[in-house]
Parts: sequence; C-alpha cells; structure tokens
Amino acid sequence: MASQETPKTCKVILADTIAKKLLAEVKETLTSIEGPSRKPTLVAFLANDDPSAGQYADWSKKTCEENGFNFDLRKVDKEALEEAVVAANHDDAVDGILVYYPIWVNNQPQDRYIQETVALSKDVEGLCHTHLFNMYHNVRFLDPPSNLKKSLLPCTPLAIVKALEHLQIYNPILAYGNRLFGKTITVINRSEVNGRPLAALLANDGATVYSVDITGVQVFTRGSGIRAPRHQVHDKEGWELKDALPLSDVVISGVPSEAFKVPTDLIRDGAVCINFSSYRNFDGPAIKEKASIYVPSTGKVTIAVLLRNLVRLIANRPRPEGTTEDAQKARTEAFKDG
Amino acid sequence: MASQETPKTCKVILADTIAKKLLAEVKETLTSIEGPSRKPTLVAFLANDDPSAGQYADWSKKTCEENGFNFDLRKVDKEALEEAVVAANHDDAVDGILVYYPIWVNNQPQDRYIQETVALSKDVEGLCHTHLFNMYHNVRFLDPPSNLKKSLLPCTPLAIVKALEHLQIYNPILAYGNRLFGKTITVINRSEVNGRPLAALLANDGATVYSVDITGVQVFTRGSGIRAPRHQVHDKEGWELKDALPLSDVVISGVPSEAFKVPTDLIRDGAVCINFSSYRNFDGPAIKEKASIYVPSTGKVTIAVLLRNLVRLIANRPRPEGTTEDAQKARTEAFKDG
Repeated sequence: MASQETPKTCKVILADTIAKKLLAEVKETLTSIEGPSRKPTLVAFLANDDPSAGQYADWSKKTCEENGFNFDLRKVDKEALEEAVVAANHDDAVDGILVYYPIWVNNQPQDRYIQETVALSKDVEGLCHTHLFNMYHNVRFLDPPSNLKKSLLPCTPLAIVKALEHLQIYNPILAYGNRLFGKTITVINRSEVNGRPLAALLANDGATVYSVDITGVQVFTRGSGIRAPRHQVHDKEGWELKDALPLSDVVISGVPSEAFKVPTDLIRDGAVCINFSSYRNFDGPAIKEKASIYVPSTGKVTIAVLLRNLVRLIANRPRPEGTTEDAQKARTEAFKDG
Repeated sequence: MASQETPKTCKVILADTIAKKLLAEVKETLTSIEGPSRKPTLVAFLANDDPSAGQYADWSKKTCEENGFNFDLRKVDKEALEEAVVAANHDDAVDGILVYYPIWVNNQPQDRYIQETVALSKDVEGLCHTHLFNMYHNVRFLDPPSNLKKSLLPCTPLAIVKALEHLQIYNPILAYGNRLFGKTITVINRSEVNGRPLAALLANDGATVYSVDITGVQVFTRGSGIRAPRHQVHDKEGWELKDALPLSDVVISGVPSEAFKVPTDLIRDGAVCINFSSYRNFDGPAIKEKASIYVPSTGKVTIAVLLRNLVRLIANRPRPEGTTEDAQKARTEAFKDG
C-alpha cells in the first residue's frame, strides 16, 4: 500500500488554462455586442529596444490573430512617439492603443506623460489618470450615476484578479465587491503599474493586503468588518517580508530579478502562490511541497485581459445613431462580472 | 453620499437554502437509480422522552413526505428497542433505520450497543463501527478494491461538510479529498457523534483543525503538505479556545448550552462561522459585524443528509438478479461528489 513517491498535493495551474477561458468569454462578448463580423484593431507602439517587450508583442500579435482581432505593431523612434499616439487617438480605424514601457528608463515622468497622451476612450491598458484614480477610489464606472460605462483596470493587476477568480479565491457566495473578505494576501512588488494598483484592487474587494518592497511593508485594508468603502494604506513599522508571509493565504510575487526567491519555509502550509515576474520568484520544486495551488506565470492571462479591456472600450463607446439607455446597459452588462 | 447605516458585509446563509439544494439532488439521484415510482421507507425509533427528539422526528416526517419518502415513527419502550431494531433489520420493506439518542442517559455503552445492533446495510446515521472506522481512517468505500459501495458518514458532521461545500470553502479547483488544504478550522465540541468525527472528516479533507472542548485543545491534521493519507491527532498542551480562534478561517460551534457564546472579539475579521448547536453559540448582532459568512443553524441540512444517506444505502444494495459491475458503478457515481 505504501507508495515510494510523495503524493502530489499541489495543483499547478498554467496561465494558458485561465487565458483560454477568458478569451472564449471575450469573443462571446464581442459577438454579442458588435456581431460576428466586427474585427477590432489594437495598435501597439514599440519605441524601446527591450527584447522582452518584443517577445510580448509577438505573443500579443499571435493571440490577437487567433481570436479575431487586428494587431498593428508600429515601431517608432521615441522622439516621434507622442505625435504617433495623437494621430492614432484621432483615427477612427483604431479601437485601442498600447505602448510598451519603459521608454525613457531614467525619466519616468516622461513615460507618465505618454500614458496620459493616450485618449481615455482608447486606453486599453487602463493607465490614464482617470482610470487609475477610479481604481484607487473603488469607483467602477466612468459616468456615475448612469453607470453605463465601466472604468478600465490596468492589465497585469486585473489579470491577477482574474486568476484569483479562476482559483475560486474570490468567493461568489459573498456580495460582488466583497468577495475577498477574510483573505490575507501578500503582494511582493509595489511598482506604480503593477504592485501598488494590485494591492489596492485586492483590498477594495475586501482582502487584507500586505504590500512588500525593499522599503518595507504597508497594509492595504478596508478596515474591521470592511466597513470603509475603499482601502486605506498604513505603514507597518519594523515589518519585513518574514512577518507578512506566515499570515498569508495567498502570496503574489512580481520581483524582476533572477536572484530573488520567496523564502518557502515562511509560506503557510497550503497557501496559494502566484508569480507574475518574468523570473521565477518561487523555488519550483520546494513550493510544490508547500502550496495548495501554484501559478508559475501570468503573462498569457495579461494578454487575454488586454483584449477584454479592448472589448470594454468598444462597449463603452456611444453608438453613433443615438442608442437607447437600455441598449447601452445591455452592452455594459454583456461582461461576465456585471 | 454618507450612509447612516453600517453597510452589511456579512452574508447570512440559512440551513433551508442548503437543504433545498441537497434535497433536489437526492430526489434526482433516487429517480436515476430506482426510477420515479420507488418510495423508500425510513423507520425511526423513539424510545426516550426528549422533547427535542420529538421535534426532530416531526421535521423529519415532514421532510420525508414532501420529498417522496415514507417515514415510519415507532415509539417503543427502551426495553423492547433491541428486538424492534432486529425485526426491522430483517424486514425487506425497511430501507433505513434511525434511532433517537440518547436513550440510556447514564449508560452510554448501552446506546453504543444499540448503534451496533442496527444492520450495516440499514445504518442511515453512519454510526455502526464499520462506518465510523472507515471515516476515521479516511477509507471511502466498503468494498475495496472494487469501490462500488460507499461507506456512509454520520449525518451532522456530513451536514457541516455539505454546508462548507455550499459556501465554497471546499475549493473545487483542488483534487477531491484535498479540497480544504490551506484552511484552518476550529471545531468547538468533541462529542463522539458530532465534534470528533467532524474534526476527523475536515482534517482528512486537508484542513488543519483545532478541536476544542472543556478538557483542552487537540489538533487534527494530515501534516505538512498534507502528505499523510489520513489525519493524526496531537494534544496542544496549554492551549485554550482563545489560542485557536484568531488563527481560524472557519469557526464551527456545537455547544449544547444556552450560556455558552464564542467570544466574538477573538474571531478573525472575515471568518466563516457555523453554529450546529440547538442553542445560539454566536452572539447574533455582533457576529454579523465580524464574519464574512454566518450560518445560524444546520438542523435542516442534517435531515436532508439523512435522506441522502438513505439513498446511498439503496445504491449500495446488490441488485437481486445479478447487476453488472458497470451498472453498480453507475449507481455509486450517481451522487454529485463521486
């Protein structure tokens, strides 16, 4: 009866599995709101020499073409980028605009300037200030109180939310918007495009989130009984990663470094572990002895979410010949999560 | 914008909701294995004067009749009980046998003797030694290695398992048998019919369970990485309820006392709280400010599980004219959880 092998208790979930489910939903939603023949166009600007951006562009192109989207990659000099973005903003044939960052590696405000140059109605990455402001304030529509136009969420954080929904960490028994209530989550990375918005999103949905970077630990939470309408942030003075990990049901890591590994021995037995770095932040063999669920990468989910956001932009657009409010509402509600 | 009322973040789930879903499944399963006209008979022996047993019998009768089962309540003198049970064991018109305990209040071994007198093939309560032994050893079938006959689980512990499945605390992403991996659960009550089997069942499914009674705290667990095939039990020397509660995602209480209340301030924010006592073990208003999900009672779920067990007994029975192994397997697999 005794087996030589250790029983495999960790479930490894590949990004591809989650991405396929999302892409099927995206295609279905697109057909329901625009009919079967509509082929939306995503324009992507490549203005840096980063090989990982090039690879991401190749994947995005492939995913677009397999799923009924045009992907138009435009390689431009960084000095010509602003004008090229403005031209795309005004071009009715362009449904969404994507820019590969970072561009000015030592001048982040200039990258921010480009993010803000993209028209709100074509901001498929959810990086315009209005989208970011709404996310941080847990405001889910662009047009309250009508609530016909959904505010977009940034792709990588939203991809992780979609992964957590797939893994049933979001409990659908609870009210929409509170489905992480009772969960404790550590997010390692507090960048402006990934870790900080992710911590805010998860806390807005009810989790207690420990946001960890080299400067220390912050807690993002809606407070006792999640009575606050949106998260607040507090410094955890003197805390380090080692204090947050043993408390966490879910550990999400996105450290852009080959050398960094989340210390397996501090992770709770049966925790859910998700890596969104392009490097493996978890120690492959060991984590499978400890975690209940392990997601080794999320890149493909991010691309699926990019197309989901593109269809959201199309659903948000006012119909040319005066659509009724009911028809507009049906477009908004065509998305699975309401 | 500011509301006067505290937003209600706790979801209260009534036993009736869970019971209705189970009863619909039970009826469907019965029809699929026995056809639409079969009306199974449950015989219940009442040999004590306990008013709560009488009320439970009334509820059971109502539920049976509403769902296509005969409920035959037989009031007998305690001295005549053994012979009455033996007669029912031999009566082909009886599909399942239930006895209301306790009978000999100051002689528990005599109650145990009656539990063992009920034929295994009619033990709808899952209290015969073979059923109990299999449960503690995480053996799920009566006839390994054919695995055509499921071993029954005791009703109240199974009702709580079914409640936790409904609440999505069992994560269906994980392998069957490991779906509580990563969850920490406190069970307050360690009786032989309820609390101890419940702690064992939850630990066998992957949870770390703190079992608490007036004698102290024990931990039931399959160990690091849930590598053991079944739970083991260790005393937590010096621990009290106050040590276990703050660690627990789920708190399950079944203390038969009006006076006992689980101290709300020690429960984790967003915990799932389930009461299976006929008294309210949680402080009603306060718990709703703290828990993410609160189940105030489980009695109706227990009755639904009783009928589910009865249909299991029928599915386990060998067909008179030599059913094929495939047909027998189909009967076993007609149940939702495999």
